This record gives sequence, structure tokens and C-alpha cells, in this order.
Amino acid sequence: MSKEPQGKELNWKTRVGGQVDGKPVVRGYPLDDLVGRVSFAEAIFLILKGELPSEREKKMMEAMLVACIDNGIGPPSVVAARTVFSGGNPLNAAVGAGVLTLGDSHGGAIEQCARIYQENFPADVVDIRAHAKAVVEEFDKKKKRLPGYGHKLYKRDPRTLRLLELAKEYGYMGRFVEFAVAVQDELEAKSGKNLPLNVDGMIAAVISEMGLSWKNGKGLFIIGRIPGLVAHVVEEWEREKPFRRLEEGTYAYDGTPVRPVPGTR
Amino acid sequence: MSKEPQGKELNWKTRVGGQVDGKPVVRGYPLDDLVGRVSFAEAIFLILKGELPSEREKKMMEAMLVACIDNGIGPPSVVAARTVFSGGNPLNAAVGAGVLTLGDSHGGAIEQCARIYQENFPADVVDIRAHAKAVVEEFDKKKKRLPGYGHKLYKRDPRTLRLLELAKEYGYMGRFVEFAVAVQDELEAKSGKNLPLNVDGMIAAVISEMGLSWKNGKGLFIIGRIPGLVAHVVEEWEREKPFRRLEEGTYAYDGTPVRPVPGTR
Amino acid sequence: MSKEPQGKELNWKTRVGGQVDGKPVVRGYPLDDLVGRVSFAEAIFLILKGELPSEREKKMMEAMLVACIDNGIGPPSVVAARTVFSGGNPLNAAVGAGVLTLGDSHGGAIEQCARIYQENFPADVVDIRAHAKAVVEEFDKKKKRLPGYGHKLYKRDPRTLRLLELAKEYGYMGRFVEFAVAVQDELEAKSGKNLPLNVDGMIAAVISEMGLSWKNGKGLFIIGRIPGLVAHVVEEWEREKPFRRLEEGTYAYDGTPVRPVPGTR
Amino acid sequence: MSKEPQGKELNWKTRVGGQVDGKPVVRGYPLDDLVGRVSFAEAIFLILKGELPSEREKKMMEAMLVACIDNGIGPPSVVAARTVFSGGNPLNAAVGAGVLTLGDSHGGAIEQCARIYQENFPADVVDIRAHAKAVVEEFDKKKKRLPGYGHKLYKRDPRTLRLLELAKEYGYMGRFVEFAVAVQDELEAKSGKNLPLNVDGMIAAVISEMGLSWKNGKGLFIIGRIPGLVAHVVEEWEREKPFRRLEEGTYAYDGTPVRPVPGTR
Repeated sequence: MSKEPQGKELNWKTRVGGQVDGKPVVRGYPLDDLVGRVSFAEAIFLILKGELPSEREKKMMEAMLVACIDNGIGPPSVVAARTVFSGGNPLNAAVGAGVLTLGDSHGGAIEQCARIYQENFPADVVDIRAHAKAVVEEFDKKKKRLPGYGHKLYKRDPRTLRLLELAKEYGYMGRFVEFAVAVQDELEAKSGKNLPLNVDGMIAAVISEMGLSWKNGKGLFIIGRIPGLVAHVVEEWEREKPFRRLEEGTYAYDGTPVRPVPGTR
Repeated sequence: MSKEPQGKELNWKTRVGGQVDGKPVVRGYPLDDLVGRVSFAEAIFLILKGELPSEREKKMMEAMLVACIDNGIGPPSVVAARTVFSGGNPLNAAVGAGVLTLGDSHGGAIEQCARIYQENFPADVVDIRAHAKAVVEEFDKKKKRLPGYGHKLYKRDPRTLRLLELAKEYGYMGRFVEFAVAVQDELEAKSGKNLPLNVDGMIAAVISEMGLSWKNGKGLFIIGRIPGLVAHVVEEWEREKPFRRLEEGTYAYDGTPVRPVPGTR
Repeated sequence: MSKEPQGKELNWKTRVGGQVDGKPVVRGYPLDDLVGRVSFAEAIFLILKGELPSEREKKMMEAMLVACIDNGIGPPSVVAARTVFSGGNPLNAAVGAGVLTLGDSHGGAIEQCARIYQENFPADVVDIRAHAKAVVEEFDKKKKRLPGYGHKLYKRDPRTLRLLELAKEYGYMGRFVEFAVAVQDELEAKSGKNLPLNVDGMIAAVISEMGLSWKNGKGLFIIGRIPGLVAHVVEEWEREKPFRRLEEGTYAYDGTPVRPVPGTR
Repeated sequence: MSKEPQGKELNWKTRVGGQVDGKPVVRGYPLDDLVGRVSFAEAIFLILKGELPSEREKKMMEAMLVACIDNGIGPPSVVAARTVFSGGNPLNAAVGAGVLTLGDSHGGAIEQCARIYQENFPADVVDIRAHAKAVVEEFDKKKKRLPGYGHKLYKRDPRTLRLLELAKEYGYMGRFVEFAVAVQDELEAKSGKNLPLNVDGMIAAVISEMGLSWKNGKGLFIIGRIPGLVAHVVEEWEREKPFRRLEEGTYAYDGTPVRPVPGTR
């Protein structure tokens, strides 16, 4: 710890990292000793949780981050990022606009879901299926939608299926993942529709198993998705002309018909 | 209205403005006919509300926008804007970052307040002081703070006092402004502290008198404050060196003390 | 001026505005004395230039700001702003993303043009048409495009025509506006194409007449356009569902065909 | 490749990733087959370069990303991110503002440096020390500063020293890294000052060895630094009160002294 100044009286203090004896430190570890010894995903786990991951935590973290990396050109974050670049802006402004787009409705389900898993799940619950049923009914009564379920394209989300395989292999089929799957079954039984646990809901359950606070949910998605945003903006740079505007015929003005400004005639 | 394509079936349609017969139109008026005939504040009123203001609406709008224009270098939006510029970014990225900073805790009270005024105020209320008392008690019971009251620097906010003068002059002392002042009196009587109606609360009351939806509250503040943000960024450009970082001695790392990376020793 | 602390030794100092004797001040004027006495456009002129405008400066400023206010739903800044909102983000993040989009290729011509007018125009030039010819040739030789000329939609930009009328009326047909028009004539004579002085180029010439530095060019456009961005985001809020993604059939993956991950089979 | 629609005629097309036969694909590989089989750093290499890395490329990529992960609370990107959060905004807006801050003067040297390495280095250069000398003299003559050299805190950058060790171990001491070090020696000999190859310059040289275009330089830094930005914003959320403004006594208004608004007196 740096001796002076006293952290408590300063406005700007942090436990994330800093300079100690003239060398960079992250969560207590000398940064240059981490370089070459831990993978990027291990360092991400460290900086978010404060401790290095175990071997199985590392493997699961690598898998979840890879699962978030890209989902094509269609999502709003990519459209916004490429559009900002096309206005004649630097790459970081464009990627930043992509991050801005990742709000409650776009990658937000990890945080929302993990909060439900972590806050609505008393430690003494034994019958997980019964608890899932109760939670589904509670949301139904309040006419609120459970985040983390359903997907426009998939009956079962291929990324979730793969993460479930790995969760089994690495020993993450604990109460949160069990609960997440039980909610899916309950929702589908109740509605008669496909409402698969999607990749957001699955990651929410796994980080809950890992003891990562739900407050890291959105951040984890941002970290996982940003390489895709960078790749899209570089592609926009190399492949497209500036100034994307909506094409003629794809938009319309449907407001007040033309009228004279008072006093013109 | 543009005849083709049919607005209803398109993803991108707007009543704000567009091209009609090859000429730009805003809320139905030919833009070039507005130029030179309406003031900027009148055009702002038009684009937000859909209709041009009356003379007294215009005057009040000019006054409110001027009241928002700047509050010195101290607020977080200015710090963020100047900091982004100092990272080596263009002016628009810096000003954009200033706008990003204007969240729930910074200029957000206009929207929050106007929503309370507009949604918690039944049309049949006659005794406004009694209603103010009831609302203050309701918030007190829920242990929620009423937005729009209190100020770090002022016993009475000089901008509010000036806007109250003008509200009297232009005929805006209607039920919303009366209610806003009654709530102040009630809060102060109850707490024995200075809790003045601040400029956000005052503007919230006036736009409610004008029939502007609370959804325009944050936008109005952004429009009013942006000239100040631009002026600060231009000043940063002309007067400061790049790369503002916190000064030595003003910040501290107070996290985990230095420890060896496992396997290094 | 606030007596303590000494501005020169601090990191954060400003001439834009601040608190003096407990009251807000903008460019030396008490803010509450400005409220109700100057229009919003006058306050904008003041905060950018440091002095209140004359009557004709005020009128011209109102006209230019109105001319920028909106250009429909098609431009990239509106697409980005509405897309960010649709990701489940607050209004200020969406409007901020719109501002981010206003880069070199979108509203950037005011700054670029005003710089050319202000820096490439020796005080001793008498024959403005000859100078215009020389500048056009210089750009032609360097194979660089002069910003501020040409428009996708217009043979003559209706906003420019209107601003030219007002420039005549208010006495702004000085050397910069004359030069701007002379360049248009030169470009059209040389190319045989329509290359009208557009609204950006016209505003660039007028602010040069007013003695406003080209560094204010982009800021002026942002200030003028932001009410349109706010109106579009409020409309998105009231009228559209969350999560705009590109529609099926309007985009494609045209990268490497599907191939197995090494080691999977 | 998706058969319809034809990529060439659409506005929105990408080689980064998409849906093929209803499953997500990244650079040709099924995403769910990548999950659990490649590390996050390998997936980052893939999405930027289009191909999976070799073993040594993977190791070097992990090391470079870890080296970027954080540098304490002092840099402008962290100040901006935490300030935006403190305005009452969601985590993604705050992290996005951090990314916005990463402009030409903050993390920009990787791109600038890699461009110099990649564009100013003819393939037929044999004597690397002589070429370094020539480039240093060229910049000196133009009075331009070479990016990637010098550091406020270090005589030798500890991250560079560690990356140099690894570059030796993994076989990356090729012409670009040799050149980068030779430039350092030349600059120091010429100036008699410490001008160490810093972490940005070192990464620039390594990605040039790897065949990654300089256009990926800024993106790589953003990807590496974003976990630190996320951790700082989560800490702001958990540990600080809203509305950071500059503290009394740390800033000043040093503009025009107070004066009356014309017409007030």
C-alpha cells in the first residue's frame, strides 16, 4: 500500500490497482509478474473479483467470454458503432458508442438475472424445482417477464447448451444453474412455448456459482463483446465509405402535413 | 406528407421532420421559412411540442434555457467533457461525454420533478397547500427524497427567484408553480432547514404549466447546458495541454498490499 | 473575480463562468440578470465569443441555429441516437451518442470551411474572385475536395439561399461571404456540375464575418442540431419498441465459409 | 456463407461473424465449437486477424493484453468513467465514456507507432541500427516527436522489460522489435535523456511482427484496458456517493470580472 497520502481523506482512492514503489500493481500483484504467467481471462477474473481464479474458474471464465464475443452485424450495438465511425470519428469513439448501446435491453439480462438468482434465493431452499415454480408464479402475478429466457432465433440456445456441457465437466451444476434450468422447464410447461434459458441467463447462473456479484454482470458482457465491436469498426474503416444514412425508401416523414409559417403569406 | 413509402410499414418513421417535395420540413413548417422568422428558442419549443409557442411561451422558454447555460467548471459534466478532450479526442466526442454525464443525479431533477407534478396531481385538487402537505407526507413515509428542492450553495436559488418574477410577469403562476412553492414551504416547515425550490424544480413546474410532457425535462436541460459544454471544450483546446491525469498526492491505492504472484518465488 | 484560490496555479480554471460572491456568473455577467433579458441565442453568442452580440449579430445567430435544427430521420446522428435508446438506455446516453456521431463527415464542414476562410485569406487580398480562383486551383492540384460545397439533394441549398437573403438584409455580405459564393461559381464553372454552397459552407462564411474562431464551427452545429436529436429520442421513447436490430434480409455475412474448429473432428 | 441475400448489394455486410444455418459463426468457425476450446485471447486474435493464433502467438497475445489491463485511478479514462457514473448513469455509459477518452494522447501510441513501423520500413533494409538512426533524424528534422518512447515514471518501463523477455522466449525478436529497441538507443544517445521504449511502443512492434495491421493498435489497447475500466466503475458504484464535483479550492473562475448586464442599471 502506498504510505502517503492517506486514502480515507482523498476523493480519489481505489483498490483496483495503482503504483507501489514505482511499479504498477493490480489487486496487490505486480503487473509485470502477472504478464506471461496468467491468461487474459485469469487477469479479468482477478480484476473483477480481487483474487486469481482456480483452474476450473479459469476454464469457465474463458468459455463465457468467448461465448459473448460477437453475434453478427445485426444487433444495435454494432449498428451504432459502425454508424458513429461513418460520421468521420475515430475508432475509440465508435467502439465507445457500441458500449453505450449495451443498455437494459441489450446484454442487460446477465445483470438482471444474476440479481434475481442472488437476491431471491434464500440459503435454506432445498427443493429447487419447487422454488423455481414459486418464483415463476410470483413474476406471473406481477405481470413481469423473467429476464434470461427466450430467444428470437433458437428453440434451444446453442451457446447455452455448450456452456451447460462445460458446467457439468468443470463442476458448476450447483444450485444456481439447477435453478436456472428449472425455471426454464417451469416457464415452458406453463406457457406451452419455447422459452429456452439463453446465453445471458446461463452466464448469470454461472457467475452466481462463482461468487461474482450481479453488479459485474453487464461488465462481463461488455468485456466479452468488445473484441467483436472493435473488429466491426476496423472492418467499417477498411471496407466502407463515410456517412451512412438511411437509404431512400426505407424511411418516412409521417408528421404534420406541410403548412405555412405564420406571417409568410 | 411524403406519399411513398407508407410510414406504417417502415422501421424508420418520424413526425419530427423530413424532406417534402425536396425541401426540409420541421413539424410541418418549411425549414427555410422558419429561418429568420422565429428565434432559436421558438424553434426548440416547436420541435419538442409540435407547435410554435405563443408570445409568453416564447419568453418563458428563452428565460429557462438561459438559466441552464452554465454553472462553472465544477460540475461532473464539465470535468468529463474536458477530460475526454484532453485524451486527444475531437470536440464532439468531448461534448458528447458531457451529455452522457447528465444522468439521474445531474440535471435529472427536471424530469423527475415534472413527472411528480404531472402524475401526482389529480385535476380535481382545489386546495393546493393541502395537496402539497399530503405529497410531502407521502414521500416522508416512503423515506424518499423529493427531487427539485435544496441546494448546496443557496438558501434561495437566485435563478429560481428570477424565474418566479418572470412567471408572475408572463402569467405562469398556475397550479403547478403554486404547488412547487407550497411543497418548498411545507418541506422547510417540517424540517426546519433551508430546502429551497431549485432551478430544476422551478423549470419542472413551468414546463408542466406549458403542457410539455415530463419526458422533455432532461432534454430541455441538455439543450440549455450544451453551449456551456461547448465553450468549456473550446477553452480546453485553446488553453490546456493534453492528458489531464490526477495530480500526484490527490489519489491513493488502498487495496490489497503487494504480494507475490503464485509461482514467482 | 474570485480572490482565492489563485487561478494560475490550479489545474482547473476557466473564463467561461463560475460562482462569484455566491452567485452564478457567465462571462462576467450575473446569470440571473441575463435570464429574461437576453434570448437563448444571445446567451450562446456570449458564451462562445465572450461578449453579447449586437442586434444584427443576434438576428444572424438566431437564423443560423434554426437552420441547423433538424434534417429528418436519415442522417447517421439520428440513427445512432435512436439505436442507443432502443438498447435500453436513458435519453442523455442516446443524445450523447448522436453528438458523438457528428464527426468530420457529418456537420464537420463548418469547422473545416471556416478554417480555410480564416487561415487562407490574407488581409491584403482585394480581388476576391481572383483569390477564389487561386484557392480552387490550389485544392485541385493537391487533389483535395473543398468542404462546404455540393449537396446530394439540392441544386441550390434552400437554407443557404435563405441565409444569403438575411446576410444581405443584416449587412453580412463581407469578404468571407463574397469569397464563399465566388468559390461556388468557380467550382461550377470548372466542373460543369452543380456544386452549390451548402448550409455548412454558408454558416462558416458568416461566423468568419462575425469574428468567431473556426474552432467554434463544430460546436455551433452541435448546439443547433441538439434539439432535433432530443425530439427524435423522445419520439423513439413514445413510439417504438426496444431493441432495434437490422431486419432480416437487409444484411449478410459474407466472410469465410463455415469450417470446423481444429480438434473438433 | 448465407445464400440469400447477396452481400454485395446490401448496405450492411460483414466478414466478422453472423448466423449460418441458424447458428452463430465467427470468422467461419461455429461459435459454440470455439467455446471451451480456445481461450479468450485466442478468440480475440481470431476475430481481429481472421485466423486462430499459433501457440506462440497465443502466448504473446495473452501477455500483451494482461500488460494493458490497468494503470491505477489516475489516467483520464478512469476519471471520465467514474465521473460519468457519478452523474447517475448506468455502468455501460460510464465504461463507454472511458473508451471515448482513449484518444490520440491516451493509448494512441500503439496505433501511431505500429503505423510508423509498418509504413516506414522498406523490406530491403538490412542494417537496422542505421535505419533507426535515419528515422530518428528524419523526425528530428521535422521537429516531430516519435510516439512510443519516454515515460513519466520509469527510466525503463517494467512492462516493456517483461514483454522483451517473453519476446525472446517466444521468438518475437524480429526486425520490428529490433528496430524499436534501436530507436530507443538512438534517441537516448542523441538526447542524453531517458527515453525508454514504453509498453505502447513495445506492443506496436510485437503486433507488427505478428502481421496485425496498425489499424488494430487502438482496438487492442481498448480490449486490454476495458476490464480495468469495468472494475473501476463497479468500485465507484459500491464505494462512492453520487455527483462528484471538483472540490472547493481546487478550481477557479479567472475570466472577465463581474459587470452589469446592459440595461439592468
